[in-house]
Amino acid sequence: MFSVTVRDHIMIAHSFRGEVFGPAQRLHGATYIVDATLRRPDLDADGIVVDIGRAAEELHRILAQLSYRNLDDEPEFAGVNTSTEMLAKVIADRMADRIQAGEFGAAARGLVGLCVTLHESHVAWATYERPL
Amino acid sequence: MFSVTVRDHIMIAHSFRGEVFGPAQRLHGATYIVDATLRRPDLDADGIVVDIGRAAEELHRILAQLSYRNLDDEPEFAGVNTSTEMLAKVIADRMADRIQAGEFGAAARGLVGLCVTLHESHVAWATYERPL
Amino acid sequence: MFSVTVRDHIMIAHSFRGEVFGPAQRLHGATYIVDATLRRPDLDADGIVVDIGRAAEELHRILAQLSYRNLDDEPEFAGVNTSTEMLAKVIADRMADRIQAGEFGAAARGLVGLCVTLHESHVAWATYERPL
Amino acid sequence: MFSVTVRDHIMIAHSFRGEVFGPAQRLHGATYIVDATLRRPDLDADGIVVDIGRAAEELHRILAQLSYRNLDDEPEFAGVNTSTEMLAKVIADRMADRIQAGEFGAAARGLVGLCVTLHESHVAWATYERPL
Amino acid sequence: MFSVTVRDHIMIAHSFRGEVFGPAQRLHGATYIVDATLRRPDLDADGIVVDIGRAAEELHRILAQLSYRNLDDEPEFAGVNTSTEMLAKVIADRMADRIQAGEFGAAARGLVGLCVTLHESHVAWATYERPL
Amino acid sequence: MFSVTVRDHIMIAHSFRGEVFGPAQRLHGATYIVDATLRRPDLDADGIVVDIGRAAEELHRILAQLSYRNLDDEPEFAGVNTSTEMLAKVIADRMADRIQAGEFGAAARGLVGLCVTLHESHVAWATYERPL
Repeated sequence: MFSVTVRDHIMIAHSFRGEVFGPAQRLHGATYIVDATLRRPDLDADGIVVDIGRAAEELHRILAQLSYRNLDDEPEFAGVNTSTEMLAKVIADRMADRIQAGEFGAAARGLVGLCVTLHESHVAWATYERPL
Repeated sequence: MFSVTVRDHIMIAHSFRGEVFGPAQRLHGATYIVDATLRRPDLDADGIVVDIGRAAEELHRILAQLSYRNLDDEPEFAGVNTSTEMLAKVIADRMADRIQAGEFGAAARGLVGLCVTLHESHVAWATYERPL
Repeated sequence: MFSVTVRDHIMIAHSFRGEVFGPAQRLHGATYIVDATLRRPDLDADGIVVDIGRAAEELHRILAQLSYRNLDDEPEFAGVNTSTEMLAKVIADRMADRIQAGEFGAAARGLVGLCVTLHESHVAWATYERPL
Repeated sequence: MFSVTVRDHIMIAHSFRGEVFGPAQRLHGATYIVDATLRRPDLDADGIVVDIGRAAEELHRILAQLSYRNLDDEPEFAGVNTSTEMLAKVIADRMADRIQAGEFGAAARGLVGLCVTLHESHVAWATYERPL
Repeated sequence: MFSVTVRDHIMIAHSFRGEVFGPAQRLHGATYIVDATLRRPDLDADGIVVDIGRAAEELHRILAQLSYRNLDDEPEFAGVNTSTEMLAKVIADRMADRIQAGEFGAAARGLVGLCVTLHESHVAWATYERPL
Repeated sequence: MFSVTVRDHIMIAHSFRGEVFGPAQRLHGATYIVDATLRRPDLDADGIVVDIGRAAEELHRILAQLSYRNLDDEPEFAGVNTSTEMLAKVIADRMADRIQAGEFGAAARGLVGLCVTLHESHVAWATYERPL
């Protein structure tokens, strides 16, 4: 199995609801370093998993919809805790939709899975992994 | 599949028995940067894999039993090579016991696996992965 | 010249005023990985720059006053852009005050300078350096 | 499941054929930070996955055949795009051959899989994973 | 003293002349992770060292003139060993020219020095530091 | 000013004397990631600060005298706390001696200073800097 990973980042504000979150129930924020990994069993005709430049651009486009925002004010996250693991899923699902819509190129249809990791600090990160 | 990882470290002395270890048969030591990863297929009612603060505290508690010690003097490791991979298993198994005992909270019972990586330097690390 | 550095982090929300900041004028947030470096020309009687455990605790204490907060709501930052470089100075100055008040121990009076670096992402960081 | 990883690097020149590569169709180069991971379900009689010193030496030997070269001039890569993902497979397959030939020691025959990751920059990397 | 650093990278081919370079006399290549640090004693009216977005764009523009090239073919480097340290100086000097030409904005005229570090691998890097 | 840095590591056991060290008074150990930086105002005739391969070999040779040892048993450290900062000085001074003895090559006589950093974990490191 092959995979390719590209890295980018977002900077957001948010707060959490639930006693388990302690001081993170207050409005605070995070830089998330975002790693998106795309998997396929064989390389395409060009000898690659995916056009890595296009993958980086697509990741950047998806992240731009989230970055420099207070996620508490975004209607799509109403009533949802935008935890690191939840945001990993949101980004992975949006990326899957773009791949299936052909935005990563025709060859990207050979992709079988993807995985998104968000690093919230040097000592904590979360991952969501799914098939395509 | 979701996962969350927390990082901490220990500083220990030890020696190895067996010609394969070369100069590491002498008493020496290591800093191990320890990454503990907890997995589950779905998020809990708070939208998380596990209370990450509690996971970090639990990892720290488990590591405190090992850190600042000469592992050659610890009865529990008598006759055992405390290799990086062996210590990864020791830490993972202790963490699994604590999870099953409810110490990570009731919601943590949804966890299905864990993985512990010990980085012994910038050029070598070892991992032990197990189900829960 | 000797120095010792300890690392910790904070997670905050804030916004900036000024066209130069572009989308960062919106309420957003950041994880800052914070490195505090303490310098002195000679080691103390114990052969160290400073009690590194105490330095880490002091850094944590200073950061706890900032973390999990919306800095726009903190009176001390009214009318101030809490840029990465500005926050580096705020943390360095508070640390200098604590050192001069003897909170890092008597031996820490031999310190001659300190330096604080805040990493706002994997591709950008800022530093403030000052004498003691 | 246990694994051990060792890290080394190579510095090579190459170019790619195919419009998808844009400016990388020109002769350019890369430093690849190479991580080789070896897996096995149980530890050997010495309590390890593999002799880590020998694994590091073997990885270095395999990389020495590639490093400080223009891969466009190497007959073995004629007509092949030496993409990051392709090189990960080349290195993994050579390592697998050496393991099966007994060069990692008799105990290494317990290995069941390996995985090679090449980091081409701080924002992009590729992996190839295979059984043994 | 304040400073701000931005990171980017280039991928180039080159070779060196001189026995001291050993196998690096052959045509090979490198990824250089490039850190550009800008210094000033006081913050500008916006509370920053420099418009960090503009600094990142300027660094990217300067690097684009070097990246995905065989430096041996570039007339500007004829007869010069494009060592890591030499390239650090080339990038720093071009950045200094752009700052002095006002391309980093009027406020950037308060900058007093800059420093460029090129990481050629995880185990080697070089820096060039100069006043403005 | 130019500089070049090479990285290597050691794994040692030791203990500290003095209440300030808390649990580190027990026999324990550390992996130190060691960065050695060499400085000079101008490049040599080959366009470099120093033969980086030779610098890496010299660093490795110096570290081999310390690695895989219990520093408490080494006569040269009798009565000395082998703190991170103290070891940085020991390594820097030995490297300075080797440079001055011509072991880094004739051109290395143009070096004016060096700096050694020891990372004891992902959250703490120490540096010693000296002229040549």
